[in-house]
This record gives sequence, C-alpha cells and structure tokens, in this order.
Amino acid sequence: MCELLGMSANVPTDIVFSFTGLMQRGGRTGPHRDGWGIGFYEGRGLRLFQDPSASCESEVANLVQRYPIKSEVVIGHIRQANVGKVCLSNTHPFVRELWGRNWCFAHNGQLGDFQGQRTFYRPIGDTDSEAAFCDLLNRVREAFPEPVEVEDLIPVLVEACAEYRAKGVFNCLLSDGDWLFCFCSTKLVHITRRAPFGPARLKDVDMIVDFQAETTPNDVVTVIATEALTENETWHRYEPGQWGLWRRGECIAQGQAS
Amino acid sequence: MCELLGMSANVPTDIVFSFTGLMQRGGRTGPHRDGWGIGFYEGRGLRLFQDPSASCESEVANLVQRYPIKSEVVIGHIRQANVGKVCLSNTHPFVRELWGRNWCFAHNGQLGDFQGQRTFYRPIGDTDSEAAFCDLLNRVREAFPEPVEVEDLIPVLVEACAEYRAKGVFNCLLSDGDWLFCFCSTKLVHITRRAPFGPARLKDVDMIVDFQAETTPNDVVTVIATEALTENETWHRYEPGQWGLWRRGECIAQGQAS
Repeated sequence: MCELLGMSANVPTDIVFSFTGLMQRGGRTGPHRDGWGIGFYEGRGLRLFQDPSASCESEVANLVQRYPIKSEVVIGHIRQANVGKVCLSNTHPFVRELWGRNWCFAHNGQLGDFQGQRTFYRPIGDTDSEAAFCDLLNRVREAFPEPVEVEDLIPVLVEACAEYRAKGVFNCLLSDGDWLFCFCSTKLVHITRRAPFGPARLKDVDMIVDFQAETTPNDVVTVIATEALTENETWHRYEPGQWGLWRRGECIAQGQAS
Repeated sequence: MCELLGMSANVPTDIVFSFTGLMQRGGRTGPHRDGWGIGFYEGRGLRLFQDPSASCESEVANLVQRYPIKSEVVIGHIRQANVGKVCLSNTHPFVRELWGRNWCFAHNGQLGDFQGQRTFYRPIGDTDSEAAFCDLLNRVREAFPEPVEVEDLIPVLVEACAEYRAKGVFNCLLSDGDWLFCFCSTKLVHITRRAPFGPARLKDVDMIVDFQAETTPNDVVTVIATEALTENETWHRYEPGQWGLWRRGECIAQGQAS
C-alpha cells in the first residue's frame, strides 16, 4: 500500500508542512520505503520530484522540504511496492500530456495484473497504477478528442474508477493543474483550512505550524490524504465509492459511484 | 539563443563536470538567464530538473551540481528567451511518452511563429521549440503507430529537422533513453572521451577534472554541446545540416540532410 497527498488552494501555497509529515512515513513512522514523488503545478507547467529510495533518507526530499515551492495544485505519493520493481519508472506520480495540459496521477491500492487499453497512452514502467492511468486517459481521449469542461468529464472518470475499484483497491488523485479529482475506494480523508486559521500539529514528527502566520484571511487550502496528517484537527473521511472534485481549494462537485 | 548539452555513455556516468560549466553560462559567463533544465534517464525513467530562473542562481541547479546522478543519456538546456515568456511550461527539455518510452527534446535556435501539427501531441507552453517537438512526434506516430528500430526512424527525423531548419535555426537533441539523436542547423560540437583518459579544464569556471580517476578503461562517454565546454581538448564541429545518432557513447550513424 501507499500513501497519497493532494492539495488544492486558491493562492499559491507552500505544502512543506504536510509533505514533511508524509515523508516520515517513507521508512521512519511508516513502511513505505520504495520511493516517493511529488508534482507541483506552476501555471501550466509541472515540477516533478521523484526518488525510488526511501523518502526519509532522500537527498531530493530534503531539498523539497527546505525549498518552499508555492503551488495551487499538488499531488504527492509515497510507495510500498506490491506490483512492479523499485525503480524511477515505477515511481508515482505519473504524468502525460492531454489537450495541451499536464495530467498528473497517483494511486493507492492494487489492481493485480491489470492490463487496460494501450492505444494512445502506454505505460513506461510495469505498475498496475500507471497501466490504469493510461487506460483512464485513453478513455478520456476516445470520448473527447477535443477539450471539454471538467464537469462533462466527470462521468467518464467516475465510471472508469468504479471499474478499477471492482478489480482491487483504487484510491486515486488526478489533476490537470486546474482541478483536482479524487476517488475513494477504501480510504481517503480531506480537510479544508480557511480563516480563522489556527495551529496544526503533525502526527508523524514533532512539528507545529501556525497557519495564521502563514496565510491571509482569504486563503482556502484543501489537503487530501490517505490518513490524517495532523492530530489536532478534524479530517473528513470519504466513503468507499465517493469522489470529489476540487478547484481553488473548494469542493465544486462530489458524488458516489454506483 | 540557448545552449544545449547532451551525453551518451556506455556506463552510468556523472555529468556534473560538464553541467557545472554549462550552468555558468546561465547569467555569469553567458546571457542565458531565462531558465534551464536537464533530464537524466535512469533506465526507462527520466529524472527532470527545471527552473525558469537563471541557472547560476538556482537552488535546484545547486542540488544537481552537488548530487552526482549517474546516467547513460542526458539532455540539458539553458535558455535565453526569444519566443514565449519565461515560465516553467516554456522551459526545456520537453518530455512526451511515445510507444511506452519517455522522449526528451531540447532545441537551440528559433522558428518564428511555427505552428506545426497539433494532432496527438500538443504544446503545453507557447514556445516554437515545444511546437516543433510535438510536430516531430506527431509525424513519427503517424508514420509508425507501433515501435520501430531507430534506424528506420532516422529518415522521418532528418526530413522533419531539415524542414524546421528551412524556417529558422534548428539545432536539437532528442532521445528515448536508449539512443541520442542530434541535428546541427548552425552550431553543435561533440567530443568522445575514452581510454587513455586525461585531465580536462572547463572554459567557464576554474575547474579541472581528471577523468582518469573517475573512469574505467572501457568507458566511452560522448558529450555534445552548442560550444566547446573545455579548453584543452579537441571538440569536433558538426557542419550545418549534419546529424548524428549515438548509442552507449558511440556514433552508430551520421549523415547530411539534403
């Protein structure tokens, strides 16, 4: 199993605090020693840092923790390998270009020997996760050769996720840099922070941040994760089959797969 | 104009020495202040570092210079913007997946208001360079929906590059992680280092490396650049219209576009 971390915010926001908590689970407080990755959108660009080594020991992870990159959408992942060997090409998040945008995807769970459509997009590594991502994008491209609004896209995304879930466990995060879509198969939690901001205490390492000092009153920042990252805040749990669509920190749609 | 850096080697090789020289041209000894990027292949995976800020001041460039990543194929670029604003999505090298491999591309020159085919691959940013890369991959995909050997691919690549060159200046590097293709429109130089290795002195910063101490007798390492990076070695100049194909440090094919 793996751990997911997603963020959607209405202003460029530094995710170092949440990332620091998550990284501890990569070999220190958690068993996820088989790599990690995080993608930060900067406009239409995507800055991707990845390492197949344990996040708690990674030089690149240290850089990311020291170097506050501000972003409106972030997708992160730490991995405990079950399908596919430990190497860079099997490290989440995965990225492909569709409609002239960077689409970024991370998965928690397993689908066994999932193959999927390999028409336009094909996996580079050998994980079930990347195969599912390619299958998903192939379905989107087949349904919509030209760009559509995300609202029109949702039925295709939800139907695909429900099918994957029927083959195993499929918690996922997906973004094109504008919106952030999440699907809960077994576990996924979310929290939206807005004024009045207070202090938050990480579960996995002795660290407190006072968001009041870091934010302005109009900031809205949503964090989505496999499990709660802080111990003094209320995280909301998605039900199995539930999905959510976020933009600029706000939930703009949600529902339940049939 | 921009500067290109490519490497093809028969063993995973650290390119920190050449990269250090190149980075000086990003605002210190050269005018290329508008971003830089470097892609290192690790097997089929690609590790990409990019920054839209000047390379001589970049925190991420410092990491890359401190952290010796070993790779058999590398493509690097520093940018002086002429088409497209300074932002991450306009920063080389550009990457797309084709046939289940990461294709990486960097360009030196300019094509004016080049549009090109936008069928399957579409630009994310607004540079002529990325538009040409997408056009090139669209031609490859159209000619070969399924993977072919690079030898069969060459005529398509050379024909496309010759057409781009007719529209402006088009020096480029392209790789799928196995081979490295280069095309010279105006300037491109290369050097192949093999035993007996000697010391090399960078042009742009006071730094000498003794390759003898860093290598084994069987190592073959080719570096391709816009201009020679060292001052005590003989770099070979490509003629306008010449192209080269490298694999594991050796030239496996070369020719002249008609």
